Amino acid sequence: MDKVAIVAYETSKFIKQSDASIFELSCQPCIGIFKRTAIDRSEVDALILSSCCTDQYGSTIVSEMLRLRPRISYRVDNLCNSGTTAITSAFSHISAGLCDCALVVGAEKSNNTSAQKLRWDITRGCFNLPIHWASIFARSHMRNFGTTEEQMAMVSVKNHKNSSKNPTALFNKEVTLQDVMNSRMISEPIKLLDCSSICEGSSALLLVSKKKVKQFTDNPVWIKGIGHRTTCASFSQVATDLVSLQSTRAAAEQAYKMSQTNPKNIDIAELHDAFTIMEILAYEDLFFTQKGEGGKFVYQEKISVNPRGGILGCGHPIGATGIAQTVEIAAQLAGRAGKTQVKGCKTGLVHNMAAAGSSSSVIILGT
Amino acid sequence: MDKVAIVAYETSKFIKQSDASIFELSCQPCIGIFKRTAIDRSEVDALILSSCCTDQYGSTIVSEMLRLRPRISYRVDNLCNSGTTAITSAFSHISAGLCDCALVVGAEKSNNTSAQKLRWDITRGCFNLPIHWASIFARSHMRNFGTTEEQMAMVSVKNHKNSSKNPTALFNKEVTLQDVMNSRMISEPIKLLDCSSICEGSSALLLVSKKKVKQFTDNPVWIKGIGHRTTCASFSQVATDLVSLQSTRAAAEQAYKMSQTNPKNIDIAELHDAFTIMEILAYEDLFFTQKGEGGKFVYQEKISVNPRGGILGCGHPIGATGIAQTVEIAAQLAGRAGKTQVKGCKTGLVHNMAAAGSSSSVIILGT
Repeated sequence: MDKVAIVAYETSKFIKQSDASIFELSCQPCIGIFKRTAIDRSEVDALILSSCCTDQYGSTIVSEMLRLRPRISYRVDNLCNSGTTAITSAFSHISAGLCDCALVVGAEKSNNTSAQKLRWDITRGCFNLPIHWASIFARSHMRNFGTTEEQMAMVSVKNHKNSSKNPTALFNKEVTLQDVMNSRMISEPIKLLDCSSICEGSSALLLVSKKKVKQFTDNPVWIKGIGHRTTCASFSQVATDLVSLQSTRAAAEQAYKMSQTNPKNIDIAELHDAFTIMEILAYEDLFFTQKGEGGKFVYQEKISVNPRGGILGCGHPIGATGIAQTVEIAAQLAGRAGKTQVKGCKTGLVHNMAAAGSSSSVIILGT
Repeated sequence: MDKVAIVAYETSKFIKQSDASIFELSCQPCIGIFKRTAIDRSEVDALILSSCCTDQYGSTIVSEMLRLRPRISYRVDNLCNSGTTAITSAFSHISAGLCDCALVVGAEKSNNTSAQKLRWDITRGCFNLPIHWASIFARSHMRNFGTTEEQMAMVSVKNHKNSSKNPTALFNKEVTLQDVMNSRMISEPIKLLDCSSICEGSSALLLVSKKKVKQFTDNPVWIKGIGHRTTCASFSQVATDLVSLQSTRAAAEQAYKMSQTNPKNIDIAELHDAFTIMEILAYEDLFFTQKGEGGKFVYQEKISVNPRGGILGCGHPIGATGIAQTVEIAAQLAGRAGKTQVKGCKTGLVHNMAAAGSSSSVIILGT
């Protein structure tokens, strides 16, 4: 297997909504990468678009708008887990020797409601909205392990604090524990500030083969481990014990094995905190801590978790989220994360997920 | 790069329309493959869905319906070129060492009109329907090279003759030269029987790594060469000379190079005959014959072209087409093509394309 590096990345400012088309949105971070790297357009031999839009042949349209003529170009749809799936696709094309330079771009408009309702669940008479399964996970974790609403609220406090320093985040204002606890109850025990917000945004990464790395940087970030698992399409099938994300556990085991590392070596991580309880579950299911200890783990400071502000602080442009998470970790490891920079991090982890953990991805990056 | 083999395949009967959902349709050929191979469900570690449907997270839904828990699972959208793109994705995951058994399934409903109109072209004020660019290609080829309407009609006659023996084809009736020439003129010089028909259908392939092959067959078909090129999203950008498919030429060159073969060694091929003129262009742009000689090439018998009946004879379920083309060539090389079997073929080629050749794929298979 050939080594694959991330050599350039950019995330556009996440916002509530604009008049830009999904295609214009997709171009924004790519143009930033072109400016920064001075890459020749003819060198880009793959463009993978991650989006849950209903528009057809978006990857081809974005290629034309960017004046690219890639060999391989297509759109990946895998719900909130689309971004890292697209990265794995680009990694695979390069690793298999079919490409040398792959641009991976994720983009979503907030007015695309088709991916925000889980039709497969709804047609089975349950779980109209993601918050319903988040609520079940939260209650179950509280009942089984004594996890508290305050611990969940602290996830939101921490991530909003981080996003306050992130210029591309949707939310640039800190929130207090009281703000979260006093925010409107949506589906007990989940309050408004326990939830992430759907928004519009885009993010892109340039992946290259080992032989191309030197052209771009002396300081590449390598993709060291990849793990994926798809367990099902519906919450009724996903949660055998209602307190763990089986797909995340399986993906993490694969990624640790492939990268020959373990949770103790992770310095920094972006976790899929679509709801505060999901970050607590992720602590446990990525093996950062024991099952049941996730509530207390929010106070730890050894691993920097969600340094960009996570999904809670940055907003959730569905197809862009996994890309933006990976951009943050790559930037951190390269020492280019700006105001959110964490000192001395060498090994980072990205955890991206689809609804209720029906599928999960874990990508481990290192210098 | 690890070798990848095709060890099982199945195509459902292509029909005008049914009440089956896109998900049920996707399951049909996969269930056939499960029965035939006795593969354990737990061995399938990737499921890639090729479809231009607007439904979200289809690959996850199909995985759940089939009781699979793949590692990697997503949907690929790349217009009429989706099928071979999905095959390349599965090839790459296996070749990169991330998976060992990948199921690739293509499916389309005929009532999904979103991929049948080329919005990117239409919003630019031209080419409401694919037939408009097909008509320009045909007139241009006739003007430049003296290609005749009879030669184009012969493509339809040949392909309908082949599809008359193919139980999964939409059309099982031969047509005569007179039938084609007398069929209704749609957009001069393209007549009704020069056009393929949108239809409903599904098709699936099982790709495995070299180490897994023996478990399934002593007679594998290997993916020997892959070529892709995306030139643009619109006809106005695609056709610099109006008589060739630049993306097909680039994809063919790559695939021949990777497989260390050349057009003279191709015994059998499925070409993207969405319109009769497109098969004539493909003869030339795959280097089977010289530019301008495509019209005469329809009478040759050295290479078996479109043995299943091509898109003209089989119908065009958009996301399934590239898969069904590859199924046919794999079956032919394995000597399992039933009534359409061509004797003694050893090297086969698949040519799949999106609108007007805006992107092309070429896959070369061999025993």
